[in-house]
Amino acid sequence: MNIKEIIRKKRSGLSLTKEEIEYFAFGAADGSIKDYQLSALLMAICFNGLDSNETLELTDAMARSGDMADLSAVNGITGDKHSTGGVGDKTTLVVAPIVAECGVKIAKMSGRGLGHTGGTVDKLESIPNFRTSFETDEFISIVNKCGICVAGQSGKLCPADKKLYSLRDATETVDNMSLIASSIMSKKLAGGADCIVLDVKCGSGAFMKDVDSATALAEKMVEIGRGAGRKIAALITDMDTPLGKNIGNSLEIVEAVETLKDNGPDDLTEICVLLAAKLLELADKGSFDDCKKLAMSKIKDGSALNKLAEMVALQGGDSEFIRNTSLFPKAHYSFDIKASESGYISHMNAEGIGLAGVSLGAGRQTKEDDIDYSAGIILNKKTGDEIAKGEIIATLYSSDESLFEQAALQFNSSVTVESKKPASKPLLLNIVG
Amino acid sequence: MNIKEIIRKKRSGLSLTKEEIEYFAFGAADGSIKDYQLSALLMAICFNGLDSNETLELTDAMARSGDMADLSAVNGITGDKHSTGGVGDKTTLVVAPIVAECGVKIAKMSGRGLGHTGGTVDKLESIPNFRTSFETDEFISIVNKCGICVAGQSGKLCPADKKLYSLRDATETVDNMSLIASSIMSKKLAGGADCIVLDVKCGSGAFMKDVDSATALAEKMVEIGRGAGRKIAALITDMDTPLGKNIGNSLEIVEAVETLKDNGPDDLTEICVLLAAKLLELADKGSFDDCKKLAMSKIKDGSALNKLAEMVALQGGDSEFIRNTSLFPKAHYSFDIKASESGYISHMNAEGIGLAGVSLGAGRQTKEDDIDYSAGIILNKKTGDEIAKGEIIATLYSSDESLFEQAALQFNSSVTVESKKPASKPLLLNIVG
Repeated sequence: MNIKEIIRKKRSGLSLTKEEIEYFAFGAADGSIKDYQLSALLMAICFNGLDSNETLELTDAMARSGDMADLSAVNGITGDKHSTGGVGDKTTLVVAPIVAECGVKIAKMSGRGLGHTGGTVDKLESIPNFRTSFETDEFISIVNKCGICVAGQSGKLCPADKKLYSLRDATETVDNMSLIASSIMSKKLAGGADCIVLDVKCGSGAFMKDVDSATALAEKMVEIGRGAGRKIAALITDMDTPLGKNIGNSLEIVEAVETLKDNGPDDLTEICVLLAAKLLELADKGSFDDCKKLAMSKIKDGSALNKLAEMVALQGGDSEFIRNTSLFPKAHYSFDIKASESGYISHMNAEGIGLAGVSLGAGRQTKEDDIDYSAGIILNKKTGDEIAKGEIIATLYSSDESLFEQAALQFNSSVTVESKKPASKPLLLNIVG
Repeated sequence: MNIKEIIRKKRSGLSLTKEEIEYFAFGAADGSIKDYQLSALLMAICFNGLDSNETLELTDAMARSGDMADLSAVNGITGDKHSTGGVGDKTTLVVAPIVAECGVKIAKMSGRGLGHTGGTVDKLESIPNFRTSFETDEFISIVNKCGICVAGQSGKLCPADKKLYSLRDATETVDNMSLIASSIMSKKLAGGADCIVLDVKCGSGAFMKDVDSATALAEKMVEIGRGAGRKIAALITDMDTPLGKNIGNSLEIVEAVETLKDNGPDDLTEICVLLAAKLLELADKGSFDDCKKLAMSKIKDGSALNKLAEMVALQGGDSEFIRNTSLFPKAHYSFDIKASESGYISHMNAEGIGLAGVSLGAGRQTKEDDIDYSAGIILNKKTGDEIAKGEIIATLYSSDESLFEQAALQFNSSVTVESKKPASKPLLLNIVG
């Protein structure tokens, strides 16, 4: 086989065979194919597309290019959840305990945050002594004991995707539906779960700007998952604004705990229940409506919160921090953002607010950056809220006072205030599968 | 400026500005833009094309990316000639002395042979002590003295083209008309001549397979040349078969000398006279028909041959080899290729025959290979000729007897014999400009 012939075929609009797709995906992973040949192929794919079969084969080959999680030793059905990137998105911390409490095992490999989005692993590491690195045996044993384990992603997960993604990012070949879908799904397939629920974000803060394109992406991912023999569904949810009110690592743990106490913000509670219910439905725990009630009951009776505390303890963390979130260290400094005019908040750019959080030390600008676990933002007002001049929109937190100036500028440029009350929008926009 | 924005623009089908084209061409030359970004851009160009203006700007930027020949010190009008790659193509050795004798100066930088095509510089270096490396002053002084100097191409000629061409070759992005035209023309513009005649080969042995596509390429190159203020025209000529009968370095010098003695093969004589006439017409030496007569007269009266001998002497070579070509050392071994059946030669694949010559030692498989100057092929029969079983089609020459087996196989697979006499085809298929 020959990479030039593969490029030529795709450039001519022909479909690639399973063998050809495997050849370039494995070649991307082991470095045997030159970057400049891969990027030419990616550009040809952006012009001529990948059909359903090619997309499935690419996903499968990228999944197989590195370590594949073997969950066969897990007792019972396994579930996984993926969000296409959000700000303030702590849903895993709420959804996982709910579904585990209902008998669906969550053996999850999770990424760290980079850029404007946070990572579940970083959030959990704000709990003292919490461990995210395990040998397979211990990982499986924790899953079998309490129903959840959240581990850091192995460096050898989907190396083909890692290489192709970095090339796409540098060559303006990111926005092809098949390439996006296969990149996300390769990691889900490698993760090994039986049932997968996807949260496809839609809106100005997300990659997909409208419901139609978000639905198309969701359909492609569901098709790939089914083609690979998984039970899978996707919710299309609004991402014109951050999810919940807290952004930042320990601040998000606190909000997740409040949500598990049935004391969380409405939007976060709603989306967590929907995601949990969809995953439970996939795992044959009843109809979607029944599963929504089931999920809600695990919040109401406090059992999901207990499950989270149990997992934290088994992963070496101090579970007292879950019982009593006031134990989390507070940021040394805070800074109030006040409204410069009266009106209604018509828009909060989630990406801009996420970047303001990064500026405060809550995230990473580069992979090597350290994280300030107590830094972040608490929103006092959200899109649709009325605000008076001088009223607090949000409070910024940081261990370094000098960071407020830039973060405040970034935050303010992400918030739009208008005189008319904006039309309210539903959170759940569509369901696929 | 930002290469990602440039890729994005071209991917979206927009035209690039002069500044954007300069940015990526210069970045290709100095290595500041990554190969994988350049190859993605080249693929996007193959899909969305370059308009006339972009093609001219790319050519101009590639020409300016390295050394530009300064011919301002040459007395009188300067001419250049380019062929799009041929086998047995020794036209420069005939055309240059003819036009120089008519007062058009040839200050030529010429490439070495690589792959199946030979290079003029290699051919001339089969003459003992012939020099092709000069400081600018000496180069110009030889041109002013005798009207011709043929120097080796500087390593710093069009580095942007060099980089982009090697990427195109590796990424299946060679066959875009604008990229082909700009690659050829960038070197012609850097060469600095006032008048340029192009010999665009057409047929199975050439990149352009039919007259329409060869004409389209010629039109694009003529448009570029005119846009850059040069006088330029192109002949579309048949390349279904090698030109002349001799292939190999000293063998081609011998045939060029025979042609300048009016004793050459008809096809070679015809094409040399046509190219010389077109260049003389561009240099205002009369109508095309008058210039054909003028060119022919310089063969008939022996003055063009004297001019070649004068140039060889000024470039340090032993001009006795031009006066008496029997001085060239003969290859130690020869091998006759005989017809295995009777019939007519319906096709001779020029590229295959060129590669047979390379196998004999006449050319280079890699840039570092040494050349066997006496090695090569003399064709006894050509396309259209009748042949009897056992009759000699060609004789192979080499210093290494062990090379004949592979070369003979290659030669035989390039020749097709049929029972019917093929229709004869004209050599000159079209003229542009």
